Parts: sequence; C-alpha cells; structure tokens
Amino acid sequence: MKEADVVIIGGSAAGPVAGVTVRRHYKEASVLLVRQENKAMVPCGIPYIFGTVGSPDKNVIPDALLSNNGIELMIDEVTSVDRASKTLTTKGGELVGYEKLILAIGSVPVRPPIPGMNLENVFPVWKDSDFLGQAQQVMGKAKDIVIIGGGFIGAEMADECKKIGDVNVTIVEILPHCLLLALDEEFCCAAESKLEERGIKIITGNGVKTIIGDGKVNAVELQSGDKVKADVVIIGIGAVPNTELAKDMDLKIGEARGIWVDEYMRTSDENIFAIGDCADKFSFFTKKPSGLRLASIATVEARIAGANVFELKRKNKGVIGVFATAFGDFAVAAAGLTEKAARDAGFDIVIGEAAAVDKHPGSMPDAKEVKIKLIVDRETGKLIGGELSGGITTGEMANIIAAFIQSEVTADEVATFQMGTQPCLTASPIVYQIVNAAEQALTKLR
Amino acid sequence: MKEADVVIIGGSAAGPVAGVTVRRHYKEASVLLVRQENKAMVPCGIPYIFGTVGSPDKNVIPDALLSNNGIELMIDEVTSVDRASKTLTTKGGELVGYEKLILAIGSVPVRPPIPGMNLENVFPVWKDSDFLGQAQQVMGKAKDIVIIGGGFIGAEMADECKKIGDVNVTIVEILPHCLLLALDEEFCCAAESKLEERGIKIITGNGVKTIIGDGKVNAVELQSGDKVKADVVIIGIGAVPNTELAKDMDLKIGEARGIWVDEYMRTSDENIFAIGDCADKFSFFTKKPSGLRLASIATVEARIAGANVFELKRKNKGVIGVFATAFGDFAVAAAGLTEKAARDAGFDIVIGEAAAVDKHPGSMPDAKEVKIKLIVDRETGKLIGGELSGGITTGEMANIIAAFIQSEVTADEVATFQMGTQPCLTASPIVYQIVNAAEQALTKLR
Repeated sequence: MKEADVVIIGGSAAGPVAGVTVRRHYKEASVLLVRQENKAMVPCGIPYIFGTVGSPDKNVIPDALLSNNGIELMIDEVTSVDRASKTLTTKGGELVGYEKLILAIGSVPVRPPIPGMNLENVFPVWKDSDFLGQAQQVMGKAKDIVIIGGGFIGAEMADECKKIGDVNVTIVEILPHCLLLALDEEFCCAAESKLEERGIKIITGNGVKTIIGDGKVNAVELQSGDKVKADVVIIGIGAVPNTELAKDMDLKIGEARGIWVDEYMRTSDENIFAIGDCADKFSFFTKKPSGLRLASIATVEARIAGANVFELKRKNKGVIGVFATAFGDFAVAAAGLTEKAARDAGFDIVIGEAAAVDKHPGSMPDAKEVKIKLIVDRETGKLIGGELSGGITTGEMANIIAAFIQSEVTADEVATFQMGTQPCLTASPIVYQIVNAAEQALTKLR
Repeated sequence: MKEADVVIIGGSAAGPVAGVTVRRHYKEASVLLVRQENKAMVPCGIPYIFGTVGSPDKNVIPDALLSNNGIELMIDEVTSVDRASKTLTTKGGELVGYEKLILAIGSVPVRPPIPGMNLENVFPVWKDSDFLGQAQQVMGKAKDIVIIGGGFIGAEMADECKKIGDVNVTIVEILPHCLLLALDEEFCCAAESKLEERGIKIITGNGVKTIIGDGKVNAVELQSGDKVKADVVIIGIGAVPNTELAKDMDLKIGEARGIWVDEYMRTSDENIFAIGDCADKFSFFTKKPSGLRLASIATVEARIAGANVFELKRKNKGVIGVFATAFGDFAVAAAGLTEKAARDAGFDIVIGEAAAVDKHPGSMPDAKEVKIKLIVDRETGKLIGGELSGGITTGEMANIIAAFIQSEVTADEVATFQMGTQPCLTASPIVYQIVNAAEQALTKLR
C-alpha cells in the first residue's frame, strides 16, 4: 500500500497551493497529490484559450510546481475513501493510506434545466484540457456563438470568442445587466458598453427557454420568444461545489451546499480538510453562508489548510470577494461588498466616489480615467467595499482596497493613506482616487 | 485688510490639498491660498516636461482645483508674517489677516559646493514654470547632457533627456549605485541595466569635482580626474526644506532641518501648521528624524493638517516612504524600509522573496516578470518594507505593500491575503508575488 503523511485530492488552484504550503510549514511531511487530469488547467485562464493564448496547452499549471516542492503526483481518480482505515482507493486500483487528507475537488458547471442542453456543440465550461481542446476546434469554425450567462466567465468568453475571427457573439443574461452579482449597475453598464464597442451583442433581462437544433444546435429561443442563431452555445452560468465524494464519505454538507468546514478548514472529520470550490464558505462581512467561488479564494483556503494540517495555526475569516476583468485595456474590478450587496445585508452605509487618470499630469500618453466607489459602514466607519473601472492597473488597485478591507481599517485611515505616486504609474497624489473617495465618504459620515 | 479663516502659503502639492481638506471638513471656513508662481507645476511631473509631455504648460496643477472647491487664489509672494497680529504682508503690498495659517512653502534644490555651479546652462531642478521653459529651450539644442545625482529625479531626467533626440546623457552618482537611498542593491542594478539599455551612460562611485566652462559649461571633471563633455548640466542631488520665512517668524526648526511640527502638524505656534517639504519629518518605523521628502507625503500631511485646522482630528504617524519610477515599461518601486535601512536602524529582520509574471498563464502576451522582496521584523512579525521590479502595475503593487505596512499587519496576515487575480491584470493566485514572498519570510521566522 502506498502511503503519504498528507494526501491531496485535486490539482487545480487549491490542491497544489495546499501541497506547497504543507511542505513549507512541515518540511518532514510527505505529500501526495492525486488528480484526474493529465494536465491541470489554470482555471481563470480558460476563457483565454479561445483567443489570446490560443490553446489549452498554453494554459497549464506546470507540474514542476509539484516536483520542485517535493510533492509526489499521481494521475488517477479517487473512487472512495475509507475514513476508518484512513485509506483511499482509485480507479486505477491503487490503495493509498493517509495521515491527513485534503479535499480540493472543485466544482461542476451548472447545467440549467433548458431543453436542448444535450445537443451537439453546447458546451458548459469544464476545466478539462481535452474537452477544451475539442470545444476550441468547434469554435474555430463557428459563425454564431451564443453565451448563456453574462458573469465574469461569460463576458470573458465572449470577448475571447470575438477574437477568433469573423463570428457573431451574443451574450444572453437573465438579470438586467451583465456582471450584476459582482458590481453595481453603473460599473456593469460601463463594462457592457465596452463589450458592445468590441462587437459583442448583449441581451439582458431575458433568459433562454429552449436550445434548438437537430442533432447539432442551430439557435436558442429566448423567454421573450425571440430566436438567436447559434452554431455553438456556451453555458457560463456558474458552478456548484463538487460534493459527491464527500457525501459518499458521509461528511457534513454546509449551508452554502459545499463541504462543511470549521474556521481551520477542517471537515466534520478532523483528519480531513476541504478547500476551494468544493468547500462551504461564509462572508467576511456578515458571517453568513456565501456562494462566492474564486480561484483566489481557493488558494487562500489552501494556505490556511496547508498550515493547519498538523497544528492549528491559521483561521479562515470568510470570503471578501475580489473580482477583476479586462476587455482590451479597459478593466473593471471590485473588492468586498457592492452598494447593493451592503444594503441588502442590512448595512447602513455611506458612499465615496472619485475619478482621476491613472498617470499624471493628465497630458501623459495613454492616461486612462480610473473611477472608484468606496462603501463605508456608518456604524464602525470601516471600509467594506470598493469598485473600480479604468486601465490595467485597476486589478492591483482593487487589491489595495482588499488589503484595507482585510486589515479592517476605517475610512479615515484610508483617507490618510501614505500611498506612493509616480507620473507613469499612478494618479497624482493630489487626486489619488482611493484616498479622495475615502475623504468624500467621510464628509457624509459626520 | 483682506482676511480669511485659513490662509495657505504655497501652491505645489501640499497647499491645494490642504485647502480642499479644510473646505471638506469645515464647510463654513473661508480659505485663501497665496503662491508666487503664475502656474503651479505638478512636482513629480517635472522630468517629463523634457521628453514625454513636451512643455511646462502640460504639467500644470489646474487652478480649477482651487476655484471648484471655493478656495481663493492670490498670486503674490509673502514677505513677512506677524504672529502677534495674525497678519501677513506680501511683495505686492497686500496685508492679509488669518485665523489659521498653513505653511506649504516647499524645498529648495541643494546646490553643492562645486566650482563652476554658476556657469551658464547649469540647472538645478526648480519647480518654476518659466525657469523650466528656459531650461527646456537650452536642452533642446544640447549634445551632451550630464546629470549630477542618480536618485529618482536624476534617473527620470536622464531617461527623459534621452528622448529629446540625438544627445549623449550621462548620470554621475557619488554612491556605488543609482537609487541606492531608496532601493537595495539588486533593484538598483536592475534599474541601471534598464537605463543603460536605453542608451544612458552611468558613472557611479564618482563625484563631480569641478564644472568646467568659459561662461557656458563645456565639461565636468570627476573626482577620479576623468572629464565628461557637457553643454548642459542638471543638478539632481535633492532638496532641503525651505525654512527662511519660518526662521524670520521665529518658529522652531526640527532635527531634520524642517519646520518643527507636532503630531497634528502644528508648528511651535498652535495657529500655524507646516506641511510638505518644508515641514520636519520622522520615520513611521523608528520615530527618528527623517530626510524623506515626497509629493505623496506632502499630500498626506496636507490631509492631516487640513482636517486639524479647527479641531484636532488626525495624527501624523510618520513617513513610510513609498517610491516608484519607470523607464519605458520597466518599473521599480519600494515601500517602507529596505533591507539595508532596516538593518542600519537595528531591526532584526527576515527577508521573503518571490517572482512571477504579472499576467497568467505566462503565455499571455506582454507578461512581465515581477520580482518582490519583503522585509519582516522578527520581533513583531510585522511587515516593514517591500521592494519590487516589474511592469507598470508595480507602482500600485507597492501601494498594496504600503497599505499593509500602514495597517501594521503581520507577515502571516499578508500570507493569507485574499487578493483578487485575473489573467490580464495580475499574477496567478498560485504564485501571487506578495503572498508568496510573505510565506517565504514566515518559514524563516519560525
């Protein structure tokens, strides 16, 4: 029987980071990672396979990450786990013993109950290299691509599909705007305008009733009755935690439908941890169950679980939620609660807004306007959210906001942030957006 | 007699921000800003006048910033202040009464005691539009420009001068490397290589003994005895606080040779505040006197003084020091203490290092490697410094580090930073540089 001190199941973002973290914190521990896929896809890179990077082979998490950190890799599928004997069995017939087990088994794409889902050329966004390669082949010949779901993955897929060539790309989103679960309306509208400018058709406030075709898909029929031509349909409406194995193992399932974990990322079996998309989550702000699932969150949970595996060192504070995306040189991003989410959660909030170009003076070439909106809790004065639109520094600017949120600082501390500024790299210190938005919020707090 | 509740002297970065802050916090207060210059220069934009933006007129802080915020502007020179009667007089013959006075009178370029300093075409870096216009005219015809001082201003001036056209540009730096007061050696070397790649000659570990010429400059003689041809010499060796007026007013001068201020930015006269380059400074880390003078620091002090002018609301925590610069698409940046500065200050430190490209997967076009080094105090576990090199997101990444330093978080909190990541905008969450460098430092803390 094969044995390892720590066995990790899953090779996407969370699994390898958990492995590296275990090895950093417990140098003597042997670590074995078991994954099904021959090649592990960079999860957030998947939309970019279809346009910018051009192939699943260019979107691989290198296995050197494992070997360089002394982590053994087994390509196989775990079929069952016996918690009593602390062993697992694989499809390939292996029996593996573990001291500690980490489940990083991810999520599965939501398959909406729409007639026609099983037609040829209807693709959910699977994180599998071979599947993505096949999808890419088909999409290379497509004339009319319909993307169901205008969240981050849907919007990025649309923008990338448009790069394939002479192809009509349509997003169908059931909510009033694309990206509406992550951004307030004004930022959604800015992103939609940019996508439309780039030739993408957007239909919002309208769902898909039926996927129509004869063997192969040829159109979608909307709830409004309108039809949209389609030789490829991509389903990008989210993912649900993969809990099948955990249910077989009789592990507790949480309120957000993920595998239940405590603040140390331990499941209901204290020798078994769960991290990433498969694990249940709660909000940093409300402590209530959260449906957020992001690769970045998965890696944080991996760093918590990896450090805790033999000694409880780190606590999970709940998900903040930091999003970003870009269409060409225009980006939108958010950290923490939106205005709408904060109000829905019952926070009494004030808003601070600011805008300034991302270089200074404004006459510097390629200066892009960065707009920012901060959300401050009136009761505590703390920063609880921020949204931005702007150029390509917007992603890291969202991380400044995330750093402040995580550090639980007040808007007054943000207003006296000792940032660095430089003509080619940032706004002027006089109008630095995050600081000025915090100052504006403060005038409303008093 | 003219009167205002708050009179501000100085119109560069600090003065206008103080004015805006006063008006934000005390809506009823009348604010008058007195400055000498017809046009106020964006201070950090000055090097870019000579290449990228092309003219001092394109580097102006717009006066609309004042008028839009209800701040009155007077272009005049303050010649004396009478603290007893709370009035000031100007060169133009005005008598102005104040309730509170804010001194934002800046710094003056250091003029080293080198023979030949008064030759024609030897320019210190003055923040004056007319002067800069004249310098630009001369530099447009230059064949051989020598820049004395390889700090941020010197390096940026060199890179911009090179853009003028067919001109030889040489930096002469007395220390072993350019940028050595702000960065550790390895980052200085990376910046030097980039400048050399861009055609700039760099002479280090060598000072200027004499500036040679006959009326006009024609060469500099180095301490080594070598001569370098020069039809223009730019002096970029720093600036000292402008304290002349304050001395006339009999205000206390501080240990770092600036106008002494308390933690509320009040001078030894509680009705008078001093901010920016003219004000004395202390280190956030050691609480000892600091010679750092940056526009970004000036604006933070302005936001503190402006809020405190009628009621003490904000305290100055001391300067962190956040620097960045870029040469083309290569940038270096730093926040807080360097390894050398931390050791010199007596901190027992550990270092964490990481490198990864600024997009993901690495096959994304234009992905640039970002290298990062974090400095952690062993005693408290807190992050006290960080340095980076990379692409143009490096400036805002330094601000993430600055946000963590200012929030006084530990390396462990940085290692579990819930950052956002996106293929076009950041590194992969698996290798996110700030987090991985913190993790690496932690393995040495234990």
